[in-house]
Amino acid sequence: MRIDVLTLFPAMFDGVFTSSILGKAREKGLVELNTVNFRDYANNKHNTVDDYPYGGGGGMVLKPEPLFAAVEDVTSGLESKPRVILMCPQGESFSQKKAEELSAERHLIFICGHYEGYDERIREHLVTDELSIGDYVLTGGELPAMVVIDSVVRLLPGVLGNETSAVTDSFSTGLLEYPHYTRPANFRGWEVPEVLISGHHGNIEEWRRKQSLERTWRKRRDLLVGIELTPKERRWLDEWEAQERSGGEAPGKPE
Amino acid sequence: MRIDVLTLFPAMFDGVFTSSILGKAREKGLVELNTVNFRDYANNKHNTVDDYPYGGGGGMVLKPEPLFAAVEDVTSGLESKPRVILMCPQGESFSQKKAEELSAERHLIFICGHYEGYDERIREHLVTDELSIGDYVLTGGELPAMVVIDSVVRLLPGVLGNETSAVTDSFSTGLLEYPHYTRPANFRGWEVPEVLISGHHGNIEEWRRKQSLERTWRKRRDLLVGIELTPKERRWLDEWEAQERSGGEAPGKPE
Repeated sequence: MRIDVLTLFPAMFDGVFTSSILGKAREKGLVELNTVNFRDYANNKHNTVDDYPYGGGGGMVLKPEPLFAAVEDVTSGLESKPRVILMCPQGESFSQKKAEELSAERHLIFICGHYEGYDERIREHLVTDELSIGDYVLTGGELPAMVVIDSVVRLLPGVLGNETSAVTDSFSTGLLEYPHYTRPANFRGWEVPEVLISGHHGNIEEWRRKQSLERTWRKRRDLLVGIELTPKERRWLDEWEAQERSGGEAPGKPE
Repeated sequence: MRIDVLTLFPAMFDGVFTSSILGKAREKGLVELNTVNFRDYANNKHNTVDDYPYGGGGGMVLKPEPLFAAVEDVTSGLESKPRVILMCPQGESFSQKKAEELSAERHLIFICGHYEGYDERIREHLVTDELSIGDYVLTGGELPAMVVIDSVVRLLPGVLGNETSAVTDSFSTGLLEYPHYTRPANFRGWEVPEVLISGHHGNIEEWRRKQSLERTWRKRRDLLVGIELTPKERRWLDEWEAQERSGGEAPGKPE
């Protein structure tokens, strides 16, 4: 996969694109990560990329020419048109499903505005996708682009080794993770739940499923919609719900 | 404000902490940003920070000792206990409200696990907050920590100049932004809406409000809950709704 990031702050990407999983994926040739400073495409003597908004008001607006020119340069000679993704607060909410969809592409281009707005013609005639990573305000689209790139690249074949794939995949079962414990068994008097050192795999599996379900039920009830439950699991939920209605504390903290 | 980030990949933060708004805020002395490699606190000969999970299963789990030791070192001698924030998929959903809350603190500590899980005793006895930036899987907590830090620091007094504050504050009115346009008035045949060059401020304001409302109504209807509407604005919504029911295209694209 090839990824080009159009930004006014290419240096922001240095550490992220060279460290850890992204750095390794790049070294292994599994992904090509480029940054393009679109100020280089400002065809005017002061290299301006933004200007005042028509109609007045505060803030600056990114001009269309430099971004169109940069995208056209990056895609010149290519047979297929890549996805051009604008990072912006009113974009579609980014999700794991979207990450999977994008991971099937051969070429992605990200446009990162900073605190400026985008000229509407960029949205209408240049980009194919608008994405937002969440309902909070950031100083620019660079961090959101890094987030999307990280979540997409980790899905490419060969990027994650076996050792790195299992634990944090919270969303793969559709439930939140069960609690993890490692050595020491007793840390400052806080002990690992007995079931986990029992060696009884059936009990461990049941404990983990119950913890996972309860945690999801307590923190993210919305995720339970559509999850298939066994009769026993259904009874657990009924118990927690009954306890909640009666105002009591539900059990299920690590034993 | 002082921010300490505990991570195994401090180099990931280099570009982000030195560029743009965060870099300037740091230069002006408005925020102190430190990274701490908690591998330095691994009190064993191989500097291991993770270990196999009790009860079996794939993946590795971050051990409690190095993180407790790192937090205790960072906070030693401090009078007040700072917030200790764990970035993890099952955390509370990060929001603009949370950013505002955190921006009132004097000291924040972020713990970034990578692909490993966290020993549960870290969650139970060390951290004060668990945050998630969205429902997608990333290779680690570093990018989420950068996102939270960026959104918090930009709210600190003196960090944003006037020129940078207005345009992108999508969430400050509770609505998505109206379309922005800047020069040229005609770019490749695509023209700026006439109202914006009319000079008629009342019309411009009304056009923008209508665009903003319509965009929100189309893309993020959930954001309209609780927004106060004038009778005229209520009529716009009624019209769009009627058009939607009749299967017609609603108007309101830039004129």
